Amino acid sequence: MNQRLDILKQWLKEESIAAAFINSTENVFYLTNFHTDPHERLMGLFVFPDAEPFVVVPGMEARQVKGAGWNYEVIGYSDHENPWEFIQQSINKRNIEGNTVAFEKEVVTYRRSENFLSLFNSPQILNVEDKLNEMRVVKDETELEIMRRAAKMADFGVEVGVNALKEGITEMEVLAKIEYELKKKGIREMSFSTMVLFGEKAGDPHGNPGDRTLKAGDFVLFDLGVVLEGYTSDITRTFAYKTISDKQREIYETVLKAELASLEASKPGNRIGDLDQIARDIITDAGYGDYFPHRIGHGLGINVHEFPSMSHLNNGILKEGMTYTIEPGIYVPEIGGVRIEDDVLITKDGYETLTAYPKELQIIE
Amino acid sequence: MNQRLDILKQWLKEESIAAAFINSTENVFYLTNFHTDPHERLMGLFVFPDAEPFVVVPGMEARQVKGAGWNYEVIGYSDHENPWEFIQQSINKRNIEGNTVAFEKEVVTYRRSENFLSLFNSPQILNVEDKLNEMRVVKDETELEIMRRAAKMADFGVEVGVNALKEGITEMEVLAKIEYELKKKGIREMSFSTMVLFGEKAGDPHGNPGDRTLKAGDFVLFDLGVVLEGYTSDITRTFAYKTISDKQREIYETVLKAELASLEASKPGNRIGDLDQIARDIITDAGYGDYFPHRIGHGLGINVHEFPSMSHLNNGILKEGMTYTIEPGIYVPEIGGVRIEDDVLITKDGYETLTAYPKELQIIE
Repeated sequence: MNQRLDILKQWLKEESIAAAFINSTENVFYLTNFHTDPHERLMGLFVFPDAEPFVVVPGMEARQVKGAGWNYEVIGYSDHENPWEFIQQSINKRNIEGNTVAFEKEVVTYRRSENFLSLFNSPQILNVEDKLNEMRVVKDETELEIMRRAAKMADFGVEVGVNALKEGITEMEVLAKIEYELKKKGIREMSFSTMVLFGEKAGDPHGNPGDRTLKAGDFVLFDLGVVLEGYTSDITRTFAYKTISDKQREIYETVLKAELASLEASKPGNRIGDLDQIARDIITDAGYGDYFPHRIGHGLGINVHEFPSMSHLNNGILKEGMTYTIEPGIYVPEIGGVRIEDDVLITKDGYETLTAYPKELQIIE
Repeated sequence: MNQRLDILKQWLKEESIAAAFINSTENVFYLTNFHTDPHERLMGLFVFPDAEPFVVVPGMEARQVKGAGWNYEVIGYSDHENPWEFIQQSINKRNIEGNTVAFEKEVVTYRRSENFLSLFNSPQILNVEDKLNEMRVVKDETELEIMRRAAKMADFGVEVGVNALKEGITEMEVLAKIEYELKKKGIREMSFSTMVLFGEKAGDPHGNPGDRTLKAGDFVLFDLGVVLEGYTSDITRTFAYKTISDKQREIYETVLKAELASLEASKPGNRIGDLDQIARDIITDAGYGDYFPHRIGHGLGINVHEFPSMSHLNNGILKEGMTYTIEPGIYVPEIGGVRIEDDVLITKDGYETLTAYPKELQIIE
């Protein structure tokens, strides 16, 4: 952790930033190893180019910060106290010079920005996310080891879902079984609301699982992931139930072809946006361009959606250690939808998929 | 919904606010009946004193806004488009006059405030939450009907948990059973991370369920709630497993006495802060004042934590239709903890508890 803090402090020096306020659960975790969900209460990390950093948390959690390995100042406050008063005192005592400050513009609420900025005279504002996103986009071995296990849990979730399929079962019943088995393995939190969609329901890329019962000829779409030790996974698999029409088969094979092509283009030095374009071209050539309404994927790590954005507009370059999803889909309202998604790691000379559940077309009996 | 919008528009007129930007999932739901989790994508409602309001959403969800009953403009955008360009066009076409604007200061990110404010010349900023919180704090019959059902689901969750208890079972196994049974009943989301804590684990008000196995003499603490049709519930019950010491019994009876006294004080016209003080005095008189580190409760509704804050500092007055939790607790590190929590509705001349699971001391065999 200290190494990450050192890199950030070095950046503060280079940018002549007097103080940085880190407010997101995810970035505080990245820099301190302390993970919490403080709900509406304030939790934050304050970092300076030279002075000692400090953490502010609801008092009940103060000892957990130390327990996570944080060796610097921790300020705990009660519900009836104003944490900004303590923050002001702690900053004053550090004799900070300069009026350029940084915080997470994409995350910090306007109210908290007001509170933070009021501690400085005529502050100039920079976005600390510029640096933190750059740091977080490349994962180290410790992170990858956790992400590999998180991806295996997602594979397992799909396996549970497939085994639960039977005529007449509802989407919610299958979803409940998946999450039950994952919880029994110690998973406390899914990385987003699990999707189990049957038939025409799978034709909506943002559909909601419900009472729809399974019948022959349905597509079955699973989209799920877990949070494990602060890191996420995210997998989608689609299956045919009992029978499949020629049209459905064509859709499935087109999505699979697009996914494999996009994976093949996953190597250091390639343009990020090309991965979307390659898949999009295949889907468009097959006549389904209008039915692929989203980008090919998203970065994955502490957040289930983080950098890099896997949009065709992204001119960034793939680097070893980047992790993201590849998830092309085709959604045809009357027929249903197919999406196939893997978690991808850029290796020294290519890629590795962290998710490993088979993706050749399977017709579940 | 239109009535709520009308009240908000009337307030905009009174405050001479030219435009309001509503960004939180919860407030957009409250005003439009459309509920979504757009993750990092922008979703927002723009309201004006006279002109037609509009909603901006990721394109894939545009038809769901209409489906929720929204009869005004909806702007959908794709991942490669900048929604703020469409917002600017839609605002320009309305010929808005004035430079006082409002948004949710406690929720809107600094970046989005920049985007919104850049649409106006030298904008003056007010907080639209001042009005929305005031509106939301009193529930109507439609809301209460949902909240009653959400509370019954929470009762059911405790029942499942109690039935699952047996020597040697882990906290996570019990938690998994509770959520499995709730999901089978159609619950897609818990209102917060479910807590099942045994023995000394229950002595930490923010403990995390894990591998701790159940044994005779443990306290068993359940804290859970569901999200149902956009509304939340939240219940805590504590049980003794097989045996109970005199000290444990004293702690339990003190918490129960404090909870009942706080409930008795729940009637229109009473000072909100008194509910905390009454419970705190009972716990302090019994010698446990240092072991009750949190406020007595929180408002409950679309958010699991909302207004009113049930702190002893709150000088607000209880009104018919308010809903909140009462949840005193005593946490003694070596012995464990007890918390008893109900969801409370202020009625015309008193209160009603929405949660109904029995709370007399039970020793589970």
